[in-house]
Amino acid sequence: MTDYQQIKAELEGIAIEDNPAMVLRKSRDFYWYSPILKAQLEHVTGDLIVSPENEDELIKVLKVAFKHDAPVTARGGGTGNYGQSMPLSGGIVLDMTKMNRIKLIEPGRVIAEPGIICAELDRQTKAHSGQELRFHPSTTGQATLGGFIAGGSGGVGSVHWGGLRDLGNVLRLRIVTLEAEPRVMELTSLDLLKVSHAYGTNGIITEVEMPLAPAYEWVDVIVGHDSFMDAVRFSDHLASSTGILTKEIAPIAAPVPYNYFTRLKPFLEEGESISVVMVAPHSIEPFKALVEVHGGTIRYRSDTAENTKGVPRAYELGWNHTTLRAMKMEPDNFTYLQVQYPSPGHVAKVQEMCAIFGDEVIGHLEFLRFDGAIQCSGLPLVRYTTPERLEEIIRIHEENGCPVFNPHRYTLEEGGMKQTDERQLEFKKETDPKGLLNPGKMIAWDDPEFDFKAGKNYLFKGITAVTGE
Amino acid sequence: MTDYQQIKAELEGIAIEDNPAMVLRKSRDFYWYSPILKAQLEHVTGDLIVSPENEDELIKVLKVAFKHDAPVTARGGGTGNYGQSMPLSGGIVLDMTKMNRIKLIEPGRVIAEPGIICAELDRQTKAHSGQELRFHPSTTGQATLGGFIAGGSGGVGSVHWGGLRDLGNVLRLRIVTLEAEPRVMELTSLDLLKVSHAYGTNGIITEVEMPLAPAYEWVDVIVGHDSFMDAVRFSDHLASSTGILTKEIAPIAAPVPYNYFTRLKPFLEEGESISVVMVAPHSIEPFKALVEVHGGTIRYRSDTAENTKGVPRAYELGWNHTTLRAMKMEPDNFTYLQVQYPSPGHVAKVQEMCAIFGDEVIGHLEFLRFDGAIQCSGLPLVRYTTPERLEEIIRIHEENGCPVFNPHRYTLEEGGMKQTDERQLEFKKETDPKGLLNPGKMIAWDDPEFDFKAGKNYLFKGITAVTGE
Repeated sequence: MTDYQQIKAELEGIAIEDNPAMVLRKSRDFYWYSPILKAQLEHVTGDLIVSPENEDELIKVLKVAFKHDAPVTARGGGTGNYGQSMPLSGGIVLDMTKMNRIKLIEPGRVIAEPGIICAELDRQTKAHSGQELRFHPSTTGQATLGGFIAGGSGGVGSVHWGGLRDLGNVLRLRIVTLEAEPRVMELTSLDLLKVSHAYGTNGIITEVEMPLAPAYEWVDVIVGHDSFMDAVRFSDHLASSTGILTKEIAPIAAPVPYNYFTRLKPFLEEGESISVVMVAPHSIEPFKALVEVHGGTIRYRSDTAENTKGVPRAYELGWNHTTLRAMKMEPDNFTYLQVQYPSPGHVAKVQEMCAIFGDEVIGHLEFLRFDGAIQCSGLPLVRYTTPERLEEIIRIHEENGCPVFNPHRYTLEEGGMKQTDERQLEFKKETDPKGLLNPGKMIAWDDPEFDFKAGKNYLFKGITAVTGE
Repeated sequence: MTDYQQIKAELEGIAIEDNPAMVLRKSRDFYWYSPILKAQLEHVTGDLIVSPENEDELIKVLKVAFKHDAPVTARGGGTGNYGQSMPLSGGIVLDMTKMNRIKLIEPGRVIAEPGIICAELDRQTKAHSGQELRFHPSTTGQATLGGFIAGGSGGVGSVHWGGLRDLGNVLRLRIVTLEAEPRVMELTSLDLLKVSHAYGTNGIITEVEMPLAPAYEWVDVIVGHDSFMDAVRFSDHLASSTGILTKEIAPIAAPVPYNYFTRLKPFLEEGESISVVMVAPHSIEPFKALVEVHGGTIRYRSDTAENTKGVPRAYELGWNHTTLRAMKMEPDNFTYLQVQYPSPGHVAKVQEMCAIFGDEVIGHLEFLRFDGAIQCSGLPLVRYTTPERLEEIIRIHEENGCPVFNPHRYTLEEGGMKQTDERQLEFKKETDPKGLLNPGKMIAWDDPEFDFKAGKNYLFKGITAVTGE
């Protein structure tokens, strides 16, 4: 049995919290979007929250954890949706939010500590030199930069720049290993994939170098359309119009906007589907021309609305904020999927899925660049009935050529890769020989014999140990 | 007979030049790239060069021209390649280069007079706020902004932003009509297509509003490859890598680089094909990783080369500068084509054309975004033998699904549209009722019965009148 009192003593001088209510709160994310994960993970909690202020303190924490065989699960803002930073085996919840300094800002580039909140980073780089991150999660006000890289894939701005997986969208990561004598390593270019989107299973990020884009006074616009497919075709045309600079393009089907976007209701029309868009000020005129060509109606513009008080920013309507707004109003009725509609036939694929599922799966797309091509990812809302029906909905998508990145699984492999990322597994052997970093998230490490084709979900023994189930 | 002495008298106070040698020089562009146009246009000359300094002076010129039925052909830097600004019927050559002021620079936007040289505009916007044009012609040091819009289509930066035809890449044009009382009109969004790429046939541009992009210290890089197709595949992958910020991607086949890029010879390897690239400084590391993945070799980098004296900038190796460099060395042996290889099969189409023509048509591509998708345009060098063989080469391209924008024709229609742009024709009726603006360039105006399918080239009677042929 790991002696957490002893660990606490050995880490004297470093901020530690062990109040169980506080630890439970900091052991959670937005896993409850999924009824499956909600049942599986609701008892998960860590033993201690440790909050290092700098790399030296962090190294000390990792050294002590190694000595006592204590699991270490790094955590940023806790805005993940699949338990990315939930400590399945308990142990140390490594709160990274105190490592939040910016070290350098140059044209096109920022170097920062991983615990900085994305919106705060944007605030500072904008004030410094009119720059901002190329893209950020819709939770930019809560999410940390390191958490975004370790647990995210893309976001607001991906319609222009692609995702975190694309070479050049992360420039450098500095990480610390979990060993008797933790080592510091610097990763660039292709090596970054060893650590990006690995949920902190193979090293703790201590410094991040990111490219920056020019910061504009983005105008939030909501366009109303008669049908969801009108919104999709408009959005596809807009995303393909490279002369019109946008940061976000998300078509969302009725009745979601009118029913669940409470603060926007005065601007919206019942029954309309919408496109949520962020447009650069100097692209507003050509944007309006495109709206007109498609017969859409501009329902809201943040730069001309008489009263924007209380109206959320456009990015807080898209991505998983769409899901959040529906679930807030009807918590038991909704869950969601993450679907890829491969280009160039993406618009037709969306239409096919709409025809199959009707109102059971309500359309919400995010347009983005994928390997250079315009396509769309879906975060459709699903009217939830049973786990079996949810599995069936996923299966039907996949049988029709629309891969699903399953947000109802907490492992890296089941979440979308479907097969182990060998680079990440090899790298884990180097950086975490005892397997103490975020245990239970990489199946290949815990259970190399696991058969992905057997149709069973992986259930980490750490969970049952903690929850007693 | 138009009385140019009378016109000169009526325009007193406005700069006029009528020295025949000077007028001949300012009546020409790079039409001699084409052996066909060289023969047709070499005797073309205007009667007067008039250089207004502002819109008021310009209006006076147009009023006088209307009164005397004098043709008016607007001219910027004279860097066109198809006689765009050559006065086929003589008359007034309207030199716009004195209208070259910048009126406003804001984040993402500039308002300028049309006669400003593109590079000078970039110099001023960069000094003001670290901004520059989204894209410019390779002749940025000589070409004017207005000339680029009236006679160009895209350029260095189109790999990121698309072309001039794309909504949002030109924001507003102010034009003056040629009537008894010239009117001033403002055009935005879809209306811009009435005037863009119309060779000044339907209004004279007096003010331009353009979007700006961030100016970076672009690094010029030359990558060496074993074969042209290696260069093409690398370039395609690079253009599709949206996380790596580039401004120019041009694969050029051996033996062009080693034989004709004289100043770069010390850096190049004989027999290698190359990719000419401009990369943002913060994208250099991921760019290098991609070069390695493709087995390329970086032969030159402007940021690390020990001696860059006399080495041209990357943009002066691409677009029509490639053609120029080969023709300078072997003036009688080369001409060129403008070919479109439609995506997504563009790489395979390039390979097919290479297989058909071998060394007779030497590959040179420019990657760009077209309706949002990555594709490539070709500006291949052609080893010139006869006009008949040139026509045959064009025909074979078109029969194989690669449309040719024929640079051996001086009319708007034959240059690529193949059919009259009805919007431009209608607009000409409003703006130039006497048909005095750049006569002979819009077939639909001069000869509405012309049969494009008859297999004959249009020969403007104005030319034969001037040349006496």
